[in-house]
Amino acid sequence: MFHLPEGVIYLDGNSLGPLPKATPEKVGSMLTQEWGDMLITGWNKADWMGQPARIGDRIGKLIGAPAGYVVMGDTLSIKVYQAVASALELNQSRKVVLSDNGNFPTDLYMVDGLLKSLNNGHELRLADPENVEAELSEEIAVLMLTEVDYRTGRKHDMKTITEKAHALGIIVIWDLAHSAGAVEVDLTACDADFAVGCTYKYLNGGPGAPAFIYVAPKHQNNIRPALSGWMGHASPFAFDLDYQAGAGIERMRVGTPPVIALTALEASLDIWDMVSMADVRAKSIQLCDLFISEVEARCPNLELASPRDGNNRGSQVSFKFEHAYAGMQALIANGVIGDFRAPNSMRFGFTPLYIDEDDVVGAATILERVINEKLWDNPQYQTRSRVT
Amino acid sequence: MFHLPEGVIYLDGNSLGPLPKATPEKVGSMLTQEWGDMLITGWNKADWMGQPARIGDRIGKLIGAPAGYVVMGDTLSIKVYQAVASALELNQSRKVVLSDNGNFPTDLYMVDGLLKSLNNGHELRLADPENVEAELSEEIAVLMLTEVDYRTGRKHDMKTITEKAHALGIIVIWDLAHSAGAVEVDLTACDADFAVGCTYKYLNGGPGAPAFIYVAPKHQNNIRPALSGWMGHASPFAFDLDYQAGAGIERMRVGTPPVIALTALEASLDIWDMVSMADVRAKSIQLCDLFISEVEARCPNLELASPRDGNNRGSQVSFKFEHAYAGMQALIANGVIGDFRAPNSMRFGFTPLYIDEDDVVGAATILERVINEKLWDNPQYQTRSRVT
Repeated sequence: MFHLPEGVIYLDGNSLGPLPKATPEKVGSMLTQEWGDMLITGWNKADWMGQPARIGDRIGKLIGAPAGYVVMGDTLSIKVYQAVASALELNQSRKVVLSDNGNFPTDLYMVDGLLKSLNNGHELRLADPENVEAELSEEIAVLMLTEVDYRTGRKHDMKTITEKAHALGIIVIWDLAHSAGAVEVDLTACDADFAVGCTYKYLNGGPGAPAFIYVAPKHQNNIRPALSGWMGHASPFAFDLDYQAGAGIERMRVGTPPVIALTALEASLDIWDMVSMADVRAKSIQLCDLFISEVEARCPNLELASPRDGNNRGSQVSFKFEHAYAGMQALIANGVIGDFRAPNSMRFGFTPLYIDEDDVVGAATILERVINEKLWDNPQYQTRSRVT
Repeated sequence: MFHLPEGVIYLDGNSLGPLPKATPEKVGSMLTQEWGDMLITGWNKADWMGQPARIGDRIGKLIGAPAGYVVMGDTLSIKVYQAVASALELNQSRKVVLSDNGNFPTDLYMVDGLLKSLNNGHELRLADPENVEAELSEEIAVLMLTEVDYRTGRKHDMKTITEKAHALGIIVIWDLAHSAGAVEVDLTACDADFAVGCTYKYLNGGPGAPAFIYVAPKHQNNIRPALSGWMGHASPFAFDLDYQAGAGIERMRVGTPPVIALTALEASLDIWDMVSMADVRAKSIQLCDLFISEVEARCPNLELASPRDGNNRGSQVSFKFEHAYAGMQALIANGVIGDFRAPNSMRFGFTPLYIDEDDVVGAATILERVINEKLWDNPQYQTRSRVT
């Protein structure tokens, strides 16, 4: 179902998922038969207007959200901004946003930028991931966490943390960047207030694919959209001079939707519609466990940086290694694509839709050669390029 | 060079430009040879990372901006937000944002949302387009205008207005949504502070194509990005916990760039690279003049809503008609695609790359039939759909 180049074991689907085989034809049809032939009338005839909500509903099924509570658009950074800005207004008497230092940096940067704009005494406070619960207090307005730590794969307990935060009057935002399509998420059961995520990792939407945002039923019609664009207006084509927020999740739309990119994502969701997240999760834990045991047996000098218990881990495994950058370059040169994450991690993502036990053992075998034969010790693997 | 369906005269390229014939193959190659074969390494190997600035430079050539001052991303609504937020911080002692009621509503909505978030005594003030100059004063922090009025095609004099505003200490933002690829713009000669625009109209990037932002050389390294995403960080892949703005225009990047959509736009810019904007502009005025004279001769009861002097007009012509909505539906049914704009305008865009004199006369002939034979007086043309 996915295109994977010959001779490559791809353990980086947690950074950029591979191309679904159906995507080029699906996008090609949209370009010629919709944009080409329908021109402007495609907004109605092909229902491009309804695409962000229609796709949102399909994502919703993967993360435990009912239809009508997820909408697509923009990037994850923008969706974080929307969620935090609206959440702060729901909790105006408090001034602290709590996150952890394992959150993906852009989430922290976007909050930092927002708080500087507000210029109203807010503070972004960071805890170590394992200390988040201890830091919860009635001082906190908003708790914003990424469920799965991008560095280590460490997984927060969404339900327990959300419950504890709610008991203290805190609004909770979950970033599902490394969760959607990777682990079982049930936003309704967790009673999450907001959730955001991207679709270019486990969901295979392509480089820079659009993001999603979920807003809980109890908040949808109470929040003010900080990014109040015309697509979130109650009547976008009335061209009123004054903004009036649309009903429910529609108000989290901003500008004109990216139809080509959303169509690419639809091709991938045709696969995801057929998948049980429980099966994916069970298989992912099995693959990660196998990788850990294979690597530890073969490379005793590598240190596991991920939780050993699969229930506390997302769908990735990281190992610390002094020469992690060069090690990953050597791995890539030998057909195993993973990720380097500063300062000293080699990160491997396991995606059961296209990775199996043979790939896991194959990757461990090549890693063993790279480490034990010091293949990393080569000047060509030392120079850092912009993206790794 | 463009795909246009048989039997259609397309006068709505100012809303959604048609498909360049080269786009499907260009996008298809990117999908299979870049995303498919390179996977994550495409960020370096295909330089997806450099795409927003590389394309920005090509747009810059069409709007009089030197290389290094335009960058792509997000939507026009988001780019408006970035420009106004940064501009207000350059002029902190003042509290008024001035615009006109012919600005596209999303620009006004985004400012309204921003000012509500700032909650610091700001005001969005609207003038009639012809009164903007009279409303300039030392009370105004930021003047934000769309050069060409989306309703009437009325064109502001960018250079004169910018000069007058600067003399009063006002920061000026120009929205070029209906200018880029339509009229000659020289941001450098105008000394504009900021400019923003979209690429799905005259620039043929496809539905929801990415937007652009220009920041003047004197401001680039002085502004704080309100939407401080990781792609605008000085070192995105250092994964620092603290935000540090990148150099120059790079800091206006936010999230992961939309590579598929940007690639579609590149196919169109291959055409635009070969075009002289002076030629396009001269031809556009000629086509608009011809349409006005043909329609006025044939349909004396239609009222011209656009400036008669081509120098004061963008690349579109609007006529007022009591039954404008039904009239446009009847026109579309008869092979002429234009736009209805509330409350009573029929709007026609003229795009010299694929519209010629025969199209203009043909469209006027069909309009004559629709009006004089009352083809609009048909119940099926009365019901309004969501998008028109």
